[in-house]
Parts: sequence; C-alpha cells; structure tokens
Amino acid sequence: MTPDTASGPGDLAGRRRLRADQARLVADVIRQQILRGTYSALPDERSLGEEFNASRNTIRDALDLLRADGLIERQPGVGTVVVGRKYAHGLDRLMGLAETLHEHGTITNEVRTATVIDAPATVAQRLECVRAVYIERLRMLNDLPLSLDLTYLPVDIGEPLLAEDLRNRDIFGLIEQVHGQPLGVAEIGMEAVNADPHSAMILQVPRGSALLLVERLSHFGCGRPIDLEFIRFRGDRLTIRAHVSRG
Amino acid sequence: MTPDTASGPGDLAGRRRLRADQARLVADVIRQQILRGTYSALPDERSLGEEFNASRNTIRDALDLLRADGLIERQPGVGTVVVGRKYAHGLDRLMGLAETLHEHGTITNEVRTATVIDAPATVAQRLECVRAVYIERLRMLNDLPLSLDLTYLPVDIGEPLLAEDLRNRDIFGLIEQVHGQPLGVAEIGMEAVNADPHSAMILQVPRGSALLLVERLSHFGCGRPIDLEFIRFRGDRLTIRAHVSRG
Repeated sequence: MTPDTASGPGDLAGRRRLRADQARLVADVIRQQILRGTYSALPDERSLGEEFNASRNTIRDALDLLRADGLIERQPGVGTVVVGRKYAHGLDRLMGLAETLHEHGTITNEVRTATVIDAPATVAQRLECVRAVYIERLRMLNDLPLSLDLTYLPVDIGEPLLAEDLRNRDIFGLIEQVHGQPLGVAEIGMEAVNADPHSAMILQVPRGSALLLVERLSHFGCGRPIDLEFIRFRGDRLTIRAHVSRG
Repeated sequence: MTPDTASGPGDLAGRRRLRADQARLVADVIRQQILRGTYSALPDERSLGEEFNASRNTIRDALDLLRADGLIERQPGVGTVVVGRKYAHGLDRLMGLAETLHEHGTITNEVRTATVIDAPATVAQRLECVRAVYIERLRMLNDLPLSLDLTYLPVDIGEPLLAEDLRNRDIFGLIEQVHGQPLGVAEIGMEAVNADPHSAMILQVPRGSALLLVERLSHFGCGRPIDLEFIRFRGDRLTIRAHVSRG
C-alpha cells in the first residue's frame, strides 16, 4: 500500500512522515483484531508486512505503537504476544459494570466513601434534592483496578443503600431491588482525559495515562433523576461499544 | 462536605488523600458545568468553597486539575476564565462531523491521502471487498484540529468519491448523494488512548495527550458494510453524548 501524500516520498521528512502514517494505519487495524480477540500471538513481521504490503520497518513501528498502549509484548523465542485485555461495555442498554462484565470475571468494589452530604448546588439541581448520598468506589475486575466511580443519589434513594452490599453489587441493581422501581433512561457524556497524579495512583496506572471519563445521569422509568455518576475508566482496560442508526 | 474515609483524617497522609479526593469531586462537578456552557468566568474561590463546603486549598487543587485539562486559566485582575471549548458529538443518530457541529462553526478537511489500495486482509473481510479506497483527513473546526480520520471504503463505493469535494463535505453525505442509498446502522467502539508523537504533532497537542479513538463500521440500510473508519478525536475538544435506555 503506497498512498499518495501532499509532500511526496522524495525527501527524507516526507519518507518519515509516510512511514509514521503507514505505521498508524497498520496499528489501527491490528488493534481492532486484538480487541476482537483474534490473536493470542501475532503473526510474524514478515507475514504482517505481506498482509499490509508494508516494509519491515513500518511493521516494527506499528508494533511499537501497540506496545506503547500496553496491548502487546515481544517475548524472546516466542514472538509478539497479546498481553493487554480490554473489556467491552455496551451502550445499547443501560447496565451496571458487574451486569455487563460478569462473563469476564468478578467485579468487586473497594468502598472508599459512603456518606450523606449537603449536595453541591449543581448536583442538587440535577438530582432535584438538597441532601445527597455520596459513594466513592474503586471497582476491580479480577482484582485489577478498572474504574473509580463517584456516585450521588438523592438522600431518600441513597440512604437505604448504605446498609446493602456495596462491595459486591452494582448500584443500579440495588436501587431497583430496594425501591422496587425500574430504571429508565440515562444521559451519558464521554471524554478522554489524562489521569491526574492522585487518580493515577488509585487506578494503578502511570501519571497522565488516558482515561475514559464518563458522566451519567440515570432516571427512574417515571422520569425522576436518581443517580449522577462520574466514572474514570482505565483506558487500557475498557472499550465502549454501541450501535447507532442513521434513521 | 466531609466524607468518612477508611483511613481517617487524623494522619497527614489521610488528610492529603482526603483533600485530593475532594478536589477531584469538586473538579468533576465544575467540569460538567463548564461543558454545559454555564460559565464564561468561574465564581471566585470563596463562593466555590461555600458551594462545595470545602477549604480554599481544596478549591485551588480542583482548579489546578481543570487547568491541567486546558479547560480554564487564571487571568490576573479578571479571575478564573473558561478557555477550553468542548463540542458534543451525539451518538443517538449516526451523523458526520460537519452535520453534527455545523452550528459551532465550519468543518474543513485537510485531505492527507486519497487513493486506491489492496485492502489489508482484515479490512477486506470487514468490508467484503478486495480493493479499497483509503482516505486520510485532518479535520478542523474553525481552523483548529479536531480529529484525524482514517477511512476505508470498498472500491465501488469509494472511487466515485475521489472526484468530489472531500475538503468540505462529510463522507457520509457524499456516499448517500453519489450512490443514492441511505446509510443504516453503524457499530462503534470507543477507547481513550495516549497520543503517539506523530499523531500528537498532526493534531497539535502535547505528546501523550488523551485522545478519544473511535472505530466505526457503517452499513447501507440494506446491511452492506461500506465505511470503516478509525478516528482520533482530541480529548480536549470533544465530548460524546448519548441516551441509553434500561429496557
């Protein structure tokens, strides 16, 4: 594959740029194969070079990009193996983490804080309450940190949950069980941010690591807003998946 | 707000941890206010301290977190002003970037590559084709980089597009216009990744900046897959928004 570029491949800067562009292109396709679980070990560099019609150096650069993301490792005598594992959290249905990932292992929660507070004005406004329950959990999948979740609930919704098993249960499930009402719709916002030093320490990632920051306001079926969350997912452990329709 | 924590506030490490936790909590709420366009300048530290029932030092730490994300700046004599602007890309309907953001300004595309290639095996499999059109665009909103998009189209779909206005038009719109068929459903995957040096240079962000990496496979209404994209959004310029239902 030899794409044309605005600055031709004649000069050295042009060639370097071309190789970096090609490495990204190769890395993106291999990355998706890894996420889909196609590989445990990658094909050798020569085979990849043939598949992508790219030079050995380009393939090496592509593998460097994937290694920097923690997805693969080169093991002497074995080749390039997949070490990172990302889990898919679907957006097609509103679900808690344990519900979503139960087939991949056990979600446990380190409850860092669970208390009643005066809601900050903007939280009070969105949850239509004055007092709120604030719960902070570090969520682990198979004993490795996956996300740090900050949750606000109106006090009448949240207070009965403080006696429940916050360590092993999703808050969604607890709300529905304790209050006997199904959840309805949630508004979700997603951003990529760099981990501040303290969040990085808690999530056991290097400072500055890319995190997926999700803000989610969930409602009861009747429309009442009852759960405002700020979730920091480790970028190297989670992919969000969704289906979107044009119509 | 004085949340209980497992390690009490008695020792210095405990107090530091408490303040870092509180700063994150305050920053998350203010961040959402900024993203919703509530502020042009932030209330002063004393008012924020009252709203969050937090110390002046905690508020300062929270503002430091938001400044590190490029959302605010302290201006002598003025106070703390909002400088970052994030745009919302909705996931509730499948739309191109120019369609989504037209009210915020003009999207223009620097076409870095547009050419016919032998599709790599995994692209060929997903697009059910042997030859593909590969288009690489740097997408700018009001002349600032927003995303770097790598697009693969089956050759019969993509080749007629090479003569069209790729600089100013979304590919979605061009496909529908040129082929007279509406798009249907897309499968989307979203991750947070750190920018590699070359992508960082193109997107004009520091190395390692958090990017939102979106993989999207779009289909015609009839089900045929016709557009595979790998999009790197600048984390500091875009939020993805969606509504999700429990039922």
